[in-house]
Amino acid sequence: MTAFHEFELIQWIRSQGGVSHSNLLGIGDDTAILKPPANSELLLATDMLMEGAHFTFPPATPELAGRKALAVNLSDIAAMGGTPHSALVSLALPRSKGPEFAKAVMQGIMDLAAEFETQLAGGDTNSWDGPLVINVAIIGIADQSQAIQRSGAQPGDWIFVTGTLGGSLDSHHLTFQPRVREAATLRDTVTIKSMIDVSDGLASDLQHILTESGVGAVIQSRQIPISHNVSPDLTDAKRLQKALSDGEDFELLFTVSPEEGQRLRDQNPLAIPLTHIGEITAGQGALLQQADGSTTSLENTGWKHQL
Amino acid sequence: MTAFHEFELIQWIRSQGGVSHSNLLGIGDDTAILKPPANSELLLATDMLMEGAHFTFPPATPELAGRKALAVNLSDIAAMGGTPHSALVSLALPRSKGPEFAKAVMQGIMDLAAEFETQLAGGDTNSWDGPLVINVAIIGIADQSQAIQRSGAQPGDWIFVTGTLGGSLDSHHLTFQPRVREAATLRDTVTIKSMIDVSDGLASDLQHILTESGVGAVIQSRQIPISHNVSPDLTDAKRLQKALSDGEDFELLFTVSPEEGQRLRDQNPLAIPLTHIGEITAGQGALLQQADGSTTSLENTGWKHQL
Repeated sequence: MTAFHEFELIQWIRSQGGVSHSNLLGIGDDTAILKPPANSELLLATDMLMEGAHFTFPPATPELAGRKALAVNLSDIAAMGGTPHSALVSLALPRSKGPEFAKAVMQGIMDLAAEFETQLAGGDTNSWDGPLVINVAIIGIADQSQAIQRSGAQPGDWIFVTGTLGGSLDSHHLTFQPRVREAATLRDTVTIKSMIDVSDGLASDLQHILTESGVGAVIQSRQIPISHNVSPDLTDAKRLQKALSDGEDFELLFTVSPEEGQRLRDQNPLAIPLTHIGEITAGQGALLQQADGSTTSLENTGWKHQL
Repeated sequence: MTAFHEFELIQWIRSQGGVSHSNLLGIGDDTAILKPPANSELLLATDMLMEGAHFTFPPATPELAGRKALAVNLSDIAAMGGTPHSALVSLALPRSKGPEFAKAVMQGIMDLAAEFETQLAGGDTNSWDGPLVINVAIIGIADQSQAIQRSGAQPGDWIFVTGTLGGSLDSHHLTFQPRVREAATLRDTVTIKSMIDVSDGLASDLQHILTESGVGAVIQSRQIPISHNVSPDLTDAKRLQKALSDGEDFELLFTVSPEEGQRLRDQNPLAIPLTHIGEITAGQGALLQQADGSTTSLENTGWKHQL
């Protein structure tokens, strides 16, 4: 194998072209330099994915692992109603796998970055005897005071979720589409009061909105849009539980006023399902209401990162 | 051991207080929200440190590993003449080491962040069966068009380096002071034409300035400030070579006009050594000039990340 150094990988990345924003000086200095657009706010997030924890080879490929590392960050920008702008990529590469593996990981990142007009602003590449670790830090842009937070839900708000839920870990988690465009369409159609992306599971992520907003919620169990990734062989109760708590769906969970909720229900502006699943209440915690009207506590059954 | 989850570590981090900038909404939503100061530019960089590659336990402690992960990023901001503002921290924590280890890593980060008025804006904590991996993405601020790039060196410029060089890997690399304040003092005293931090070794990092600026350089071998970390038992030639190529010094290497260089040499505005080591030339590549006037090529002997 030809000797292959960090500098050469960086040269290869630069030679690939890719998105280039006029207000960003990217790879090539100690830092990137971003001139923020007037009247804008910057959205900043980061996610680290580790081989063996967030993906395994197979079913993942190096391209899909790279793709996912950017996709989860794009999903965070979507959840704020923002526009992705640029990303910083750090890699810990397994030394044994060589330069083609490194390029494949970067290719997966760069292809998705191109799709979402995200410039590769910089990064850090390393190799070691451990498994693949990918960290992406993302920069998004929102109009001043227009970023959509978790804290804006109000009693009476209708709760919506995009797409369908459950069973993502069987493979969807490697190929999901971050809901950047859907968030933009929704943002331009209605006033979104609060929003989060469903990464840990609906039950868990809804709780973040409730806690930050100081409100409660009632969710209608029969309204939960269960994904075709959830096996039809399971009991209805088990299927519902998976939709509520599997995580890694990366759909948008948001609230709007009842009037605007009605508009969304009458005419879905998206090309994917959009489901009214419940209401925000003045109480605390979340209740799950069955078809017969009885309620149970929507336990916080989502994925928790056990340290 | 009590069950310990990501959410609880985040709560602990939030409970520690720390730096809080009025223009940044930090931990607690899908992304942080930064309102950029008027007439400013943002500096963006990232570095990933892996146990076994960038540090080992011992001599490192979890606090020192965390400290270093932020320090190398602060050094990048210093190299642009910027002011650190905020940081995003991602952790892959060895599951076997438990919550106290996680807190110790964060403590090392937070203590240095406080020292450099850097807000912890967000992050991602994970655990796995692998070694510790820490990624920091940093956001710095520079006045509009005032960020100091590698590309501004001109023939005739004097080349300076802060501090002393060599032998850092014997322990200095865990405890070095990022030269943020020194860069600010220099920036306010003279016009810095080009600058970089010495992470890979002077020979290697100087080459980045030369390449990006399209110039050459002559370095005076007897002017190189050799650190007391370099063993006095080595030959003079070996000691010089270590100072030129060891890396991990995180000192500042920069160029100024001869007039301003004279001022810096007459009166060092810093509390640390500041050494005039050579000049920028109109040629290509770097020459090392011996005391007798003879020159050799300053080979690119710096650390290269072999993938």
